[in-house]
Amino acid sequence: MSKPLILVSNDDGITSSGIRKLIELMSTLGEVVVVAPDKPQSGMGHAITVGDTLRLVKSDLFGDILAYECSGTPADCIKLAKREVLKDRKVDLVVSGINHGSNTSISVLYSGTMSAAIEGAIEGGPAIGFSLCDFSADADFSHVDEYVLKITRNVLEHGLPTGIALNVNFPPKQNENLKGIKICRQANARWEEEFDKRIDPHGRNYYWMVGNFINHDKGEDNDEWAISDNYVSVVPCQFDLTGYHAIATLNEQWDI
Amino acid sequence: MSKPLILVSNDDGITSSGIRKLIELMSTLGEVVVVAPDKPQSGMGHAITVGDTLRLVKSDLFGDILAYECSGTPADCIKLAKREVLKDRKVDLVVSGINHGSNTSISVLYSGTMSAAIEGAIEGGPAIGFSLCDFSADADFSHVDEYVLKITRNVLEHGLPTGIALNVNFPPKQNENLKGIKICRQANARWEEEFDKRIDPHGRNYYWMVGNFINHDKGEDNDEWAISDNYVSVVPCQFDLTGYHAIATLNEQWDI
Repeated sequence: MSKPLILVSNDDGITSSGIRKLIELMSTLGEVVVVAPDKPQSGMGHAITVGDTLRLVKSDLFGDILAYECSGTPADCIKLAKREVLKDRKVDLVVSGINHGSNTSISVLYSGTMSAAIEGAIEGGPAIGFSLCDFSADADFSHVDEYVLKITRNVLEHGLPTGIALNVNFPPKQNENLKGIKICRQANARWEEEFDKRIDPHGRNYYWMVGNFINHDKGEDNDEWAISDNYVSVVPCQFDLTGYHAIATLNEQWDI
Repeated sequence: MSKPLILVSNDDGITSSGIRKLIELMSTLGEVVVVAPDKPQSGMGHAITVGDTLRLVKSDLFGDILAYECSGTPADCIKLAKREVLKDRKVDLVVSGINHGSNTSISVLYSGTMSAAIEGAIEGGPAIGFSLCDFSADADFSHVDEYVLKITRNVLEHGLPTGIALNVNFPPKQNENLKGIKICRQANARWEEEFDKRIDPHGRNYYWMVGNFINHDKGEDNDEWAISDNYVSVVPCQFDLTGYHAIATLNEQWDI
């Protein structure tokens, strides 16, 4: 049986240690091709490049592994990989990450890591975004190997339901071992920003956005709960945003 | 009764004719405050500015209406508006648009217009994104007035279900009148891009992304169908991306 073709991307950029870890792990499971941003693209959400050009440049960062750095967003990377780099081949799996920082709960919307995975799912194949809930550039990834492999093997074996990408988050490295994997829903939480207003050397105002994460969710079946209890969280994410329950409500209430 | 406070934003930028039309219409329903991007932000999805500074500059484009142009994304605009510009006031409604171009179906994920609306919904209030399925800068918006007002009045009167923002799309102006409003689901369609590869004057490759919209959906309850039949489409959109149906599937299939 031929080895699966695994496309790797991320949003922290091609030089981050998280993508190196992911490439190393995926190489044990299949043939790896990398198309990743040439600079950090955190917080890019599902942005694509529509009014500007894109660059795609071969990279020798990973030895024999075919790799390209791309000037665009994570979603651009997946599109360019599928239509240009791998246009005559079938990609068996798209993986993104390992992100330096949490993408639990509402952060899935802002996440470049997850936009690459969701773009993979839109194209019709299985896709996984991996994130470590530790923002530091030199984060310790040593505890995640076993779980990245276990989750990826399950996805390669069983596929994923149509229209679903996985949002996988790992707790930061702690003294005790991870407790296991929990399949979760997205926690009902949000970012409540403050703006740090400053004055530049030319006397003009500017702002830094500072996020405070507010968790409203008391449930024990969501990703925030799983991470806080030292479990790996896996949330199946869909890109059909329709709130089906609201269709009947609007039809009843509205005078149209 | 005091007039509702309506926050207006968009993704085409503060100088576009679509936002002027929306401001004109909203001013007949409430007190309008504008915080909109200082440049086009189409295709920005739910991007936010995390690694850079933000500017917020007062604008006199709309006479007596309080307005700011912001250097950030549509989602940034809503965050800055709520936390800085209107921090001591309650926003009754967030509206975004009117976008020059369709945001039906999967385009909701890439849409800066809808990210402003969804950001409003995340903050807990009602929110609507309006788009005209005509990309031209001098698009004819004359047929939408009645429907923008009708939909907005219904939302002001009834509110929206928790966790829902509306994605409203208008067919392009045609000879016959619009047939009415359909509450829809998001069509199962996607963009299949091609990349137009060119060589710059310095001999290096670059690409332009060219999107081809592929509609797989034969249903008559989705937004693409409504637009093609000259109806206004209204899709209730949620920001909980959990594919609940897939949780049981993963728990059954996986060896964890």
